[in-house]
Amino acid sequence: MPDSIRPSAPAAAAAPAAAAVPVLAVGSVAFDSIATPRGRAERVLGGAATYFSLAARLFAPVRIVAVVGEDFLPQHAALLASRGICLRGLERRPGKCFFWAGEYDANPNLRRTLATELNVFADFQPQVPEEYRSSEILFLGNIAPKLQTAVCRALPHARLVGGDTMNYWIQSQPEAVREFLSHLDLLIINDSEAVELSGEWNLAAAARRIRALGPQRIIIKRGEHGASLYGPEGCCSVPGYPLEDVWDPTGAGDSFAGGAIGYLASRPPGDAQDLRRALVYGSVLGSFACERFGVERLLELTREEVDARYAEFLELSRIPAAG
Amino acid sequence: MPDSIRPSAPAAAAAPAAAAVPVLAVGSVAFDSIATPRGRAERVLGGAATYFSLAARLFAPVRIVAVVGEDFLPQHAALLASRGICLRGLERRPGKCFFWAGEYDANPNLRRTLATELNVFADFQPQVPEEYRSSEILFLGNIAPKLQTAVCRALPHARLVGGDTMNYWIQSQPEAVREFLSHLDLLIINDSEAVELSGEWNLAAAARRIRALGPQRIIIKRGEHGASLYGPEGCCSVPGYPLEDVWDPTGAGDSFAGGAIGYLASRPPGDAQDLRRALVYGSVLGSFACERFGVERLLELTREEVDARYAEFLELSRIPAAG
Repeated sequence: MPDSIRPSAPAAAAAPAAAAVPVLAVGSVAFDSIATPRGRAERVLGGAATYFSLAARLFAPVRIVAVVGEDFLPQHAALLASRGICLRGLERRPGKCFFWAGEYDANPNLRRTLATELNVFADFQPQVPEEYRSSEILFLGNIAPKLQTAVCRALPHARLVGGDTMNYWIQSQPEAVREFLSHLDLLIINDSEAVELSGEWNLAAAARRIRALGPQRIIIKRGEHGASLYGPEGCCSVPGYPLEDVWDPTGAGDSFAGGAIGYLASRPPGDAQDLRRALVYGSVLGSFACERFGVERLLELTREEVDARYAEFLELSRIPAAG
Repeated sequence: MPDSIRPSAPAAAAAPAAAAVPVLAVGSVAFDSIATPRGRAERVLGGAATYFSLAARLFAPVRIVAVVGEDFLPQHAALLASRGICLRGLERRPGKCFFWAGEYDANPNLRRTLATELNVFADFQPQVPEEYRSSEILFLGNIAPKLQTAVCRALPHARLVGGDTMNYWIQSQPEAVREFLSHLDLLIINDSEAVELSGEWNLAAAARRIRALGPQRIIIKRGEHGASLYGPEGCCSVPGYPLEDVWDPTGAGDSFAGGAIGYLASRPPGDAQDLRRALVYGSVLGSFACERFGVERLLELTREEVDARYAEFLELSRIPAAG
């Protein structure tokens, strides 16, 4: 039984790099009930924007635009604020937070949704506070594509716009998803979403088709098998981290995005190698997210642990020169 | 319509390295009828030992122990012999060669078997010619595990014994598969086989369990997502090659094994880096095998093309130092 809601944890103080600029994250803040072969967690803090922010805060200051209900208590706010996450864009509404319940099979790729309650999220209209409008780095988590597009339009001068979507929107609002894609610099989605969005089973072909719709670059997450970045420089791939003890895969993809975008926000623009590094930092954060239930591992995570795992990825991927 | 049966091709002359020792390959030589979204090929030369040998011959001399029927014509023998493959261990029997027919979905991971005719393969009892008994490098393709074990016992002094198996044997003859595993140095199987063999969905855990059954090292092939090597040195992974134009995935796994084992046969023993290189050369050969129907691409393949693709894998996998 995880005990993930702790108001503070001394080890978790973030120390963003000197060059870091704030990341604005838009998405869901939610409660999740999760069952996996390792146990269960009831109504723990979750949601795409929460995972994203707790990963990105290791690299840069983070600002959240989201909506929460009355069950989002001061202790939850304190928990996020203590990790350097600015909550001035968090709208409070009567009702309850978005709630998701699901259970994972022994095969972690198979998960069953037991409940989805939109609650206050049903009428979410992201409001970007005036002081956030100069944010240079923007990430649109998985919400209705029309809302994603509206936020992109509200921040026309962002130097990096990243985003996510999901099969539900691809199927039900394909035109709105296309419009959203036209605003993106970097799309970060998983393999099944890339297949659905492009109509191509082959991921390299899928990436080419999706890039033609707008985003200059796309990262396709392959779950346990790693992730690939496709862009004008070609393709590069990072293998999956060989984590034997997967407690809970929930939020791994959002943590990946937080690691990748957060890292880019910590760097001055212009170094193409940083995109490869972002792919690795994303993989690092995604792997840590699976090590405990919910956001528990991310709350405690330090930049030193992140960099140690980066070094493990270097060794995991190392190919000697031909001989 | 492929035209893969050509008696000779000047570009395909093999030039094994000076240190190369012969590889003895045991497995099937067959004819396949294949349909993919790119077209179809009728009764073309195939079989695990054929793909393996045509890949391995780029690195080392290859000897085949297999059984063929009367439909294996002198031109087929000439084709393999012209690629430096020794056929003295090829037993000829009345009847027909093993025959497989199948079709692939647009999702190349979904294939449907339309026909399997064992023919002369039904009574295959591998006979290792006396002159082959000193072979230092041995690969047991996917045949009945009792036969695999018998060949291992006939070559007790081999310095590297590699092998493959499949779900059919894992399900129907689990004890015989375990006995076979105890003779292996390097098992090369795909992810679904690793899951079935170990009862573990997690591939790192699966690898640990399988290694406890005998093989010091295991390579798990992940299809389009790459491959991982697990051994006493830890884990290393190579991503999948971003091949957009997959003509025919048949034999990619056997070609992978041929590339990996053939490369190791070309190297003096003792350099642990060679295992990582073998993982890459396996990936290289597996990727080439998919570029045409059947063995067509392997027949024409040169060592120069192989090394150029190795360099592409280096770039694909390159992770910059953390920054």
